[in-house]
Amino acid sequence: MTVYNIALIGFGGVNRALAELIASKNPLWERDLGFRLNIVAVSDLYLGSVISPNGLDATTLVESKFAKGGFSQLSGGSAEANNEVVIKNAPADIIVEATFTNPKDGEPAVSHCRWALEGGKHVVTTNKGPVAIAAQELKALAKKNGVRFEYEGSVMSGTPVIRMVDKTLAGAELNGFEGILNGTSNFVLGRMETGMDFSAAVKEAQELGYAEADPTADVEGFDVRLKVVILANELLGANLTPDDVARKGISGLTAADIDTAKKAGSRWKLIGSAIRNADGSVTGSVEPKCLPLEHPLAAVSGATNAVSLNTELLGSVTVTGPGAGRIETAYALLSDIVAIHNLAGANLKKEAA
Amino acid sequence: MTVYNIALIGFGGVNRALAELIASKNPLWERDLGFRLNIVAVSDLYLGSVISPNGLDATTLVESKFAKGGFSQLSGGSAEANNEVVIKNAPADIIVEATFTNPKDGEPAVSHCRWALEGGKHVVTTNKGPVAIAAQELKALAKKNGVRFEYEGSVMSGTPVIRMVDKTLAGAELNGFEGILNGTSNFVLGRMETGMDFSAAVKEAQELGYAEADPTADVEGFDVRLKVVILANELLGANLTPDDVARKGISGLTAADIDTAKKAGSRWKLIGSAIRNADGSVTGSVEPKCLPLEHPLAAVSGATNAVSLNTELLGSVTVTGPGAGRIETAYALLSDIVAIHNLAGANLKKEAA
Repeated sequence: MTVYNIALIGFGGVNRALAELIASKNPLWERDLGFRLNIVAVSDLYLGSVISPNGLDATTLVESKFAKGGFSQLSGGSAEANNEVVIKNAPADIIVEATFTNPKDGEPAVSHCRWALEGGKHVVTTNKGPVAIAAQELKALAKKNGVRFEYEGSVMSGTPVIRMVDKTLAGAELNGFEGILNGTSNFVLGRMETGMDFSAAVKEAQELGYAEADPTADVEGFDVRLKVVILANELLGANLTPDDVARKGISGLTAADIDTAKKAGSRWKLIGSAIRNADGSVTGSVEPKCLPLEHPLAAVSGATNAVSLNTELLGSVTVTGPGAGRIETAYALLSDIVAIHNLAGANLKKEAA
Repeated sequence: MTVYNIALIGFGGVNRALAELIASKNPLWERDLGFRLNIVAVSDLYLGSVISPNGLDATTLVESKFAKGGFSQLSGGSAEANNEVVIKNAPADIIVEATFTNPKDGEPAVSHCRWALEGGKHVVTTNKGPVAIAAQELKALAKKNGVRFEYEGSVMSGTPVIRMVDKTLAGAELNGFEGILNGTSNFVLGRMETGMDFSAAVKEAQELGYAEADPTADVEGFDVRLKVVILANELLGANLTPDDVARKGISGLTAADIDTAKKAGSRWKLIGSAIRNADGSVTGSVEPKCLPLEHPLAAVSGATNAVSLNTELLGSVTVTGPGAGRIETAYALLSDIVAIHNLAGANLKKEAA
């Protein structure tokens, strides 16, 4: 039986959900996936950090009501979030990076990833920052150190997109994509279709926990722009930065715009897209588009996300699924670990030959 | 550079489309996929058979207007479709099975696959027959002989479903699926929504080439039933035969049924589905269902296909794409060969270690 020792960097919703899954699913994963996960370290800005070479009990970790700095109560614990020490010194095979997204320079998550990869540790992350800002550098660093940098959850939570294209659409000749990549703005547009104005719809999204106190990143397309950069660079071999992608959000849409579209048998959606141009360059954009109801993305409602992949040999293939959610995003981390495990399996077989 | 020698069994629309792709795409595949394809044999009920150890020119093969038995004009050719000889004796690495689907016992395609696998040749196929009837036996035979039996195109042409679940959703805990798996019946239902009655809609589908002279397999759910068996056995580990799956087609739906649904904000779709029951058994079914417009499958229109995969950790993930088409189905064969190539790569690295 393979056991992967993992260190959780950040202990917010996503990594907490992963710990919950570990608490209940390890026997199932042993049977179906061929491995179990053992948490050997956790670091969190609020709770502090802890290294436990034999492993922390996932149930205890999830159920304890720690106060600020509370990890100091644990054996091997500290009230400080010693991320660098944890990443460099914890006996982890895999570093699970789930700190906050910094859309400017990706820090401190980029450094977290660098430390891990330089130390020969795999990295799995749901953090858009390091992927949008530094994917090329981090992938090269992973390769150099014989480990993997995996980030399925940086776009559309656990709904497969990056790995789907890589593993199931090779040779289909992807020319571009368009997607609904932000559940909050899609929810707001849906509410506006019922006659609500923009501000009231945002307020409702905030009350339901879909939108943050400052909804700018979601409704003005900044979040989608990071995802367009990630997908364009990953799927179309582009080398875009966020500033390369034109961006327009949905705050300028009025109730009248929505109504006019409705009467014309169409519907506004915030679309993130990229296309490969004739000269090989790639253009990304984020803007509200008025889609006819027959369009494969027109029916994607509420907080659901979807991406249509436009290919030469298959035409359009669309994948639709959750775009957020604690467990759904934690699943993305699991799917990254499964991919590492399967690759390690091939390597182990190689070594045994 | 890796060259795979392939033998085409059946030279109808799909294998002919594969030959067309080979004629133009080999340089691209060499660059992007790491291999090229070389056709060393073809066998076809109408045209005869030919074995050419050095390879047949794909362009010549595609552009020549052969008469009945016309392969006899080629060096190494015969007016007879010597399938068994071709499969057993051609110096092929991969047998590409694309003969007609026999829903009763899968023959002669099951024998074609057996001969190939017993001879240590990989099989890729778009033929539902051998997959629905004999997948377990053929997979075991492939394993025993150190080769692969791949069949992504047996459901939804090149739109990834089987490989998508295997490669991107491991550990998501699939509990069932429901899909629109027959483009002809979906097209007919779409036309009925415009006010046409069933017979007129079928007639139009026949005129457009979507439906065959005898539309029974499509509109009565027999085709969908085979696909439900394939997906249930593959994705849910079931062991169903076609007779185990309850089946009802769309011929009983009247214009009034369609109209009533429309007025209620819903829409009839022919749904193939399977669920895992509490006792671990799997129940499959094919029947028209009246879906609310918010349902992820309700907006799938025309000849497009889609499958919603119901998972424990992600909820519903839906993939939508072409369900048929010459090039789209030929792409499924290419995607199977890519999968074999990637696996062979892992094995080759193993041997080199």
